[in-house]
Amino acid sequence: MTLEGKMLIGREATSGSSQPISAVNPATGERLEPAYLGGTQAEVERACVLADEAFDHFRDTALDERAAFLETIASEIEAIGDALIERAMAETGLPQARLEGERGRTCGQLRLFASVVRAGEWLDVRIDPALPEREPMPRADLRQRHIPLGPVAVFGASNFPLAFSVAGGDTASALAAGCPVVVKGHSAHPGTSELVGRAIQRAVAKCGLPEGVFSLLFGSGSEIGQALVADPRIQAVGFTGSRRGGTALMATAQARPQPIPVYAEMSSINPVFLLPEALRSRGPQLAEGFVASLNMGAGQFCTNPGLVIAVAGAELDAFIEAAGAAVRQSAAQTMLTPGIHRAYQQGVERLAANPWVKEVARGPLGESAHPCQAGLFVTSAEDFLADPELQEEVFGATSLVIECADLAEMQRVAAGLEGQLTATLQLDDGDLEAAKGLLPTLERKAGRILANGWPTGVEVCHAMVHGGPFPATSDSRTTSVGSAAIQRFLRPVCYQALPQELLPEALRDGNPWAVSRLIDGKREA
Amino acid sequence: MTLEGKMLIGREATSGSSQPISAVNPATGERLEPAYLGGTQAEVERACVLADEAFDHFRDTALDERAAFLETIASEIEAIGDALIERAMAETGLPQARLEGERGRTCGQLRLFASVVRAGEWLDVRIDPALPEREPMPRADLRQRHIPLGPVAVFGASNFPLAFSVAGGDTASALAAGCPVVVKGHSAHPGTSELVGRAIQRAVAKCGLPEGVFSLLFGSGSEIGQALVADPRIQAVGFTGSRRGGTALMATAQARPQPIPVYAEMSSINPVFLLPEALRSRGPQLAEGFVASLNMGAGQFCTNPGLVIAVAGAELDAFIEAAGAAVRQSAAQTMLTPGIHRAYQQGVERLAANPWVKEVARGPLGESAHPCQAGLFVTSAEDFLADPELQEEVFGATSLVIECADLAEMQRVAAGLEGQLTATLQLDDGDLEAAKGLLPTLERKAGRILANGWPTGVEVCHAMVHGGPFPATSDSRTTSVGSAAIQRFLRPVCYQALPQELLPEALRDGNPWAVSRLIDGKREA
Repeated sequence: MTLEGKMLIGREATSGSSQPISAVNPATGERLEPAYLGGTQAEVERACVLADEAFDHFRDTALDERAAFLETIASEIEAIGDALIERAMAETGLPQARLEGERGRTCGQLRLFASVVRAGEWLDVRIDPALPEREPMPRADLRQRHIPLGPVAVFGASNFPLAFSVAGGDTASALAAGCPVVVKGHSAHPGTSELVGRAIQRAVAKCGLPEGVFSLLFGSGSEIGQALVADPRIQAVGFTGSRRGGTALMATAQARPQPIPVYAEMSSINPVFLLPEALRSRGPQLAEGFVASLNMGAGQFCTNPGLVIAVAGAELDAFIEAAGAAVRQSAAQTMLTPGIHRAYQQGVERLAANPWVKEVARGPLGESAHPCQAGLFVTSAEDFLADPELQEEVFGATSLVIECADLAEMQRVAAGLEGQLTATLQLDDGDLEAAKGLLPTLERKAGRILANGWPTGVEVCHAMVHGGPFPATSDSRTTSVGSAAIQRFLRPVCYQALPQELLPEALRDGNPWAVSRLIDGKREA
Repeated sequence: MTLEGKMLIGREATSGSSQPISAVNPATGERLEPAYLGGTQAEVERACVLADEAFDHFRDTALDERAAFLETIASEIEAIGDALIERAMAETGLPQARLEGERGRTCGQLRLFASVVRAGEWLDVRIDPALPEREPMPRADLRQRHIPLGPVAVFGASNFPLAFSVAGGDTASALAAGCPVVVKGHSAHPGTSELVGRAIQRAVAKCGLPEGVFSLLFGSGSEIGQALVADPRIQAVGFTGSRRGGTALMATAQARPQPIPVYAEMSSINPVFLLPEALRSRGPQLAEGFVASLNMGAGQFCTNPGLVIAVAGAELDAFIEAAGAAVRQSAAQTMLTPGIHRAYQQGVERLAANPWVKEVARGPLGESAHPCQAGLFVTSAEDFLADPELQEEVFGATSLVIECADLAEMQRVAAGLEGQLTATLQLDDGDLEAAKGLLPTLERKAGRILANGWPTGVEVCHAMVHGGPFPATSDSRTTSVGSAAIQRFLRPVCYQALPQELLPEALRDGNPWAVSRLIDGKREA
């Protein structure tokens, strides 16, 4: 499988005419072949026109047909074999086992959405039968289903080159909903993107779907991405990345003649509350678990525990000491890109230079070109609450411990937090009352609340919420991981008194698609 | 029940200190007592602080308790008796029967949401049980439910002084979701608003809920409304009104440090397609039904049929002639406010002055102070497609007929439409193929598609969609009428490995709330 350095527009592979993009091996600094010539407005438009043309056909596919397409993508990705893992390792510096796991997750995710498509709950079928005899006015027959929004723009993320990239969660859920997808590939892993993009392209062809169901564009800077979001055919956006990047796309989407929804997953520092009994009874284990979570993937997870909150005292001192010792022994891992490494160093320096923050420990520097030197800092609740800068995400393996005078101050810290993807409680039986006091606040702040675990590791399942209030995401009403993510790309349509022949099959009498239905407000058995 | 001219903030009745607002009887031009002194930033803040304080208590109410509250509001509104109808008639010029019907709908809507709250589908409970033995990694216990977003700002609409106002659909669905509500009452019917607001206030007290669950503010101009949307405690907005008003609120909501969702129902011209066979076989009845729908409520319905699209020919000529004759005999009804009347006259004059538009008929002028003189105009598909101004809503009983050369041109007109609340097909058996050709386009344009009916008259039920792509609404993913409207004010939260004592009751083992649940992706029987 030779990489050609091409964008994929419908069934074609094509070169752009703007700045070339080359991946860099972050462990060695070596530039990787081939170069990818970035696209221009012309390629954006071509991909979007094809997507729009494909939409009516694609959204009309039967449940089984669409599910089979998702499964074919998974098989095609697996069929790439080791070449995919090798290229992803070279482009990201991530270890083989991690990438193999991520490939498993990516394909599992596609198959999960296939099962979701088949189950048909996403259609949200509702039928209120006609009441011709009702007084004073008869009621017409009313039926509702959900339809896809239209072509979706997806932005590949740097930190999950498979699971949040070309065939990642956004693409899988948008395709599952029946939306054609135009991906803007991440410039850090264009080769991985091309390989996966070609797998999707093959699946489109094998399933006999219109070519515009999928395209893959490249482009450095923000020009291509902004043009994509501004294109009138695009009807929704999926993005995982920085707060600055996400809010820029939100602004573009709102400034369109027809504003569209943006699902941006942006920024979270994932507070971990160490409640007193838990801290007392198992401080050293907590320190160990915490540092393991902090270092996972060189800290480059959206759910990295960037904040630890506890009541000051001897137990917390012991925790900090143990965690500091573990940080000092944390081998530096290679970060994803030179840019991420630079931003991380700047973030750590900002913390270190903050007069109200004390450095606890720094890890060894490591020998790769772009090592993530772990870090642990501490500050008081009062200083934390006074300085909004301390809530800014430092993307990487650095965390800040907040020392509170008592549980009341811990509560105030919780109330002062920005929106988060997760909030974690470490608690023992004696902490239940304290936890009950925190929970209402944490529910208002986070999309997922964990007990006695660590926020890294996001299960792909039905109950998962990988979302949360701004700035964790641009839209707290949804999740970007798990089966409920399909709902982001759907809207309801009501059919009033349509003859059976004109009704979508899912809504016809006799329930030919055998989907769950709400009849007159009651869930059908 | 004496009107005091007061705003209602929590349990208090209070006067503002800005411009006084007086309702005007639109039939007579007479100013109605009492005057309402508008609020200032101080009252906005007080109402929002109370709402925020009430939120955690209110959202924690059991299903029955919250449902009983909605039912109590309905009973309290009914208990006002004739005084409510009389005041609403004086403030709006709407006839008694219409307002009595609207009161029934308003109370029925509150009771529908009570039943929706009790059924608990809105919680969207999902449970993925722990898999401790799974390889390579165990799965934690993951449970999801929906929680309310927080305090909601609701803007009363002028055209439904009961059903889309203080205790209308937005308020009912937000309260059902567990969100405290701060209403900005419409300046055209402050007395009606005060009466209904006091009914809600009494219901809050009777049900022992915190006072901040409901407040009612007044204010002329946009100042109070903008301040309300900008208040950091407000977490969502419900609005029905003009496109200009809605987009201004959208901009304010997006410019906040924490952007929030705005559900604005704004502008729709509700195209009606007369397919050839239907036009041939029952043109005169169609003309009659169309003009009746056009005149309903002096055309002041969001779903008023402002556009009729058909293939040119003798049958369409006959339809236009019959519809024109009916328009000429349409008695002018009083419009809601002097401002709406003025805007209507300007809209009609703009149509009349358009060189590509021909006047078919105007109704009699009538004798009230603000009569809606019905109007019918005609233009060609080509001219319609060339002039975006012809898609602007003229709020009132005026409609535009589009003559198409053939079905292909009808299809182009459909494709050229902006987003709509509704699209209607008049069809006979011989029109099925033509209808099939139009449907995919109409699904992309409208929230509700009707066959052989008229768009006015929106059923409050489970399958209803009163929504649609921009500019019909600001958010096509929802509806503002019907039980699904509750979903606008909810967001999912996931609980990972929480002990039973900390889980919300709805998520506990044994399903103590007896709600519908998705277990491992399967709907529980």
